[in-house]
Amino acid sequence: MAREAWGRWGAEDEVGAPNLIGPEQVRLAASLVRTGQVMSLSQPISVRTPVPKHRAGAMHFMGRDGGDYAAGAKRPGGFQFAEDTVVLPLHLGTHIDALCHAWCDDHLYNGFPGATVRSTTGALRCGIDKMKPLVTRGVLLDIVRLRGTVAAPGDVIGRAELEAATAGAGVTLRQGDAVLIRTGWLESQTARDVDFNAEPGIDVEAALWLASRDVAMIGADNFAIETLPFPASTVFPVHQRLIRDHGIPLLEGMVLRPLAEAGGTAFLFVVTPLPVVGGTGSPVAPVAVL
Amino acid sequence: MAREAWGRWGAEDEVGAPNLIGPEQVRLAASLVRTGQVMSLSQPISVRTPVPKHRAGAMHFMGRDGGDYAAGAKRPGGFQFAEDTVVLPLHLGTHIDALCHAWCDDHLYNGFPGATVRSTTGALRCGIDKMKPLVTRGVLLDIVRLRGTVAAPGDVIGRAELEAATAGAGVTLRQGDAVLIRTGWLESQTARDVDFNAEPGIDVEAALWLASRDVAMIGADNFAIETLPFPASTVFPVHQRLIRDHGIPLLEGMVLRPLAEAGGTAFLFVVTPLPVVGGTGSPVAPVAVL
Amino acid sequence: MAREAWGRWGAEDEVGAPNLIGPEQVRLAASLVRTGQVMSLSQPISVRTPVPKHRAGAMHFMGRDGGDYAAGAKRPGGFQFAEDTVVLPLHLGTHIDALCHAWCDDHLYNGFPGATVRSTTGALRCGIDKMKPLVTRGVLLDIVRLRGTVAAPGDVIGRAELEAATAGAGVTLRQGDAVLIRTGWLESQTARDVDFNAEPGIDVEAALWLASRDVAMIGADNFAIETLPFPASTVFPVHQRLIRDHGIPLLEGMVLRPLAEAGGTAFLFVVTPLPVVGGTGSPVAPVAVL
Amino acid sequence: MAREAWGRWGAEDEVGAPNLIGPEQVRLAASLVRTGQVMSLSQPISVRTPVPKHRAGAMHFMGRDGGDYAAGAKRPGGFQFAEDTVVLPLHLGTHIDALCHAWCDDHLYNGFPGATVRSTTGALRCGIDKMKPLVTRGVLLDIVRLRGTVAAPGDVIGRAELEAATAGAGVTLRQGDAVLIRTGWLESQTARDVDFNAEPGIDVEAALWLASRDVAMIGADNFAIETLPFPASTVFPVHQRLIRDHGIPLLEGMVLRPLAEAGGTAFLFVVTPLPVVGGTGSPVAPVAVL
Repeated sequence: MAREAWGRWGAEDEVGAPNLIGPEQVRLAASLVRTGQVMSLSQPISVRTPVPKHRAGAMHFMGRDGGDYAAGAKRPGGFQFAEDTVVLPLHLGTHIDALCHAWCDDHLYNGFPGATVRSTTGALRCGIDKMKPLVTRGVLLDIVRLRGTVAAPGDVIGRAELEAATAGAGVTLRQGDAVLIRTGWLESQTARDVDFNAEPGIDVEAALWLASRDVAMIGADNFAIETLPFPASTVFPVHQRLIRDHGIPLLEGMVLRPLAEAGGTAFLFVVTPLPVVGGTGSPVAPVAVL
Repeated sequence: MAREAWGRWGAEDEVGAPNLIGPEQVRLAASLVRTGQVMSLSQPISVRTPVPKHRAGAMHFMGRDGGDYAAGAKRPGGFQFAEDTVVLPLHLGTHIDALCHAWCDDHLYNGFPGATVRSTTGALRCGIDKMKPLVTRGVLLDIVRLRGTVAAPGDVIGRAELEAATAGAGVTLRQGDAVLIRTGWLESQTARDVDFNAEPGIDVEAALWLASRDVAMIGADNFAIETLPFPASTVFPVHQRLIRDHGIPLLEGMVLRPLAEAGGTAFLFVVTPLPVVGGTGSPVAPVAVL
Repeated sequence: MAREAWGRWGAEDEVGAPNLIGPEQVRLAASLVRTGQVMSLSQPISVRTPVPKHRAGAMHFMGRDGGDYAAGAKRPGGFQFAEDTVVLPLHLGTHIDALCHAWCDDHLYNGFPGATVRSTTGALRCGIDKMKPLVTRGVLLDIVRLRGTVAAPGDVIGRAELEAATAGAGVTLRQGDAVLIRTGWLESQTARDVDFNAEPGIDVEAALWLASRDVAMIGADNFAIETLPFPASTVFPVHQRLIRDHGIPLLEGMVLRPLAEAGGTAFLFVVTPLPVVGGTGSPVAPVAVL
Repeated sequence: MAREAWGRWGAEDEVGAPNLIGPEQVRLAASLVRTGQVMSLSQPISVRTPVPKHRAGAMHFMGRDGGDYAAGAKRPGGFQFAEDTVVLPLHLGTHIDALCHAWCDDHLYNGFPGATVRSTTGALRCGIDKMKPLVTRGVLLDIVRLRGTVAAPGDVIGRAELEAATAGAGVTLRQGDAVLIRTGWLESQTARDVDFNAEPGIDVEAALWLASRDVAMIGADNFAIETLPFPASTVFPVHQRLIRDHGIPLLEGMVLRPLAEAGGTAFLFVVTPLPVVGGTGSPVAPVAVL
């Protein structure tokens, strides 16, 4: 494969496309704030957060709570408190994929061996702890508005539609942008059992077009950015090309309808992954500031 | 106790002092961006993240990794991936306390019964899922710079020192500010076994002074914002007053030395807790944008 | 309610009916060994172990495995090893209920307050750590053989059927027996999604008859020993009567078909719960020795 | 290395030395019951169960408890219950090592590739789910009684001492025996922080002598059966020889003092690992029946 971004930021780089966000991009993003409205773009995290059938969901345990005091627990100095622990799959809900999350041919982004990702150490290369907090311009590509309806499961969103949505947003993509694609998938899920095997998403050509615009990150309101089922004989082809070859992190499971309804098109965007050492991703709570 | 903020934002309010951040404060914060430098203020999360002896640390498990492919795992369509799960105490490392984390007299902030925080449901009131993402002005109060040295374990940082540090930062505290206090504690920890029972921190008078300035949040580079050991006959008195009576969330375990060394005094500050439904807090990766 | 066994073994007793197993019962049980065949009566434990929809299943994580060595992990002194961790709900698969698992009227077996079971401590009273390892005579009551077919979901197995099955086994129930009831439920489950809301099981009258025989424990090959759905206006009535009032632990989710097919009727039975301090139950791997 | 037991029970065997327990051994074991006294040989499991510093301990979370009812939780039909979940490292406390736990030269017992032990599947070969429940004669080799004192950390217990202890027990080792070695280590641990790097234990010669006696399992009251620190240039040499080459499972962390004080020397011994699919071991609650 092409491996377009390998070596682009040096042989030891583990950051990838977020390198495209420099101080200039940050300043520009901050200058976009108009109303001061802060939009949260994340799903709540709970035992009910939808997950594919083959994956475990989150667990949430209270180690101490108000019930314990009701049952007679002591309160030294009057102090009462509650604390808790989660068992948290890192690719749950609204989450970002680190560059070590997906690869092929036994090599990660920038040529690091897949064998550097191990049970005992986590990812020695390209872990989520190597990803910078992202502060940049966010651009919403609203396919729902473009189509006048939500995209259906299995729908392919191609380059032309992305270009049309970009024009519809009144913006030109710039280096370092975080592109957020609203397909309508997540907002369409009403059943308790979500079908993760069929969703609308972009294809490889659309993905490569975004990469060619030097975007820093691609997010969407679906499970995998790309369309499912995959084209014949391929498995997560967009993941392979974007994450491995272009070093572009993906931000999946976003909540984008309220942002669209608030009229967000280009805005200050901030997402700060938890720096889990050697982690392959992180649940996140990204925000758009209008 | 005084319960100063109860009812201030309505009888049903579960947000507290972050309500003090309105669009005006957000716009002001964005306007502070000068250089575009983004500073991460969080500790890495791993099995080695220091925790008090009575608490469990984090665990990190790889569900699939490069070793599995080295051992012969199939790669349909060439696709390879890694995924992982953490067991994550929510008050680990750099984390924010939700308003349901600490209380007294069986009532949380705004008068909600402590009994609304249960094993089966988590916190029905004032959970971390009720906290807004915070985008506001951050102000660094650098006690280390003020003193010319790191504060010692047990040191009390009083109102006068906070006022002096504010003056030293060249700012006047304003409604909605996020105040970040650098005591030097975390940056002084070099031993593997960190002593969480003695640390420098603020006292109640200093805390109430900050509250009187209408700050939205208080953070620090120590374990508990307040000094440990506690004054005689008290247990976490600052927690009780700030969280319960003033509705001010606390952000503990911050990494502040690099921010101080970069000259950060007043800046765009963003912290976005994970919206764990009913959670009592969240590990976070806050950022300052200079 | 009747609370028949409260005080029977003293005001501080936390063991309950297993007290009925004395040295005499143990010796008798050992004397039953004829062929020396050891039958395992437990389900395998894995992420696929069926659980009700409202409960989380098990997770299994490898902390180190052969893949890591394939990926290049060091092997000091030639030594290689693997280790792992489970997230294990204690009422998963084949498991025993401690006497603190179920109660009513705010009081556990023997009158201990329900408030002694807390988040911070687990069960201070009647935890699984208080249960003795059980070595006693097991008696298989084979309803499938009696009926000539598996009992259907919702079927009630009453006292008369238990008496008939006892006669069919050629035994008279004795003090300290572990009674194992084969309904055919578990062996009938072939779908991936098991319906835990309808199953054959005993009713309260049958349960009380067993209690009147001074049995030490009751097990079955279903989810809850008792029939589901419950009789109108009741919720787990057999649990309330047996566990709370009679101090009889229940052993659910047993694999009994192979034992039946091997001709087991009365045999040496051993079940040894994990002594989780304050735990409300334990997965177990009980055995019958023929 | 010698790989003495490879192929002994067939090329596909994953059971190893427990194959040496046949019906005859079971019948013999049952016939040893004299008094009917049941001795538990396991440590309690809790967050305080000692673990080496490099390993995580257990966690125990209540999902529902009496505090929740004290705080007002509903009790449909009067029913109240508590349930809980553990995060349980499988080599914690009193536990048995599966034959996939330790190996060398990239091959497990009986020649299975180490690469069959993976993150995604657990151990496809020689997992704890392949181990039979063990019902056999237990023999206590009481080094503490032999020496008149507990063995010191680092002490080597050699073949001669094992032979003397066997004579002291008045028994001759037989095929299928479970040998339990009391070094006195665990009963000597009184500090909160247990030192797992120095303990008394057997050496390779002693281990091979036990293997030559066709024992089915070896247990001890220490962390690793074998002495620590290891002889120069070796790492867990007894594990490599016994587990990999002889297929003998090890049972570590046993509580043996009460058994010794009760006069147990040869007895009915039962240990039933949890059948965790692909697991490398299991916490257990073994019993001796006198």
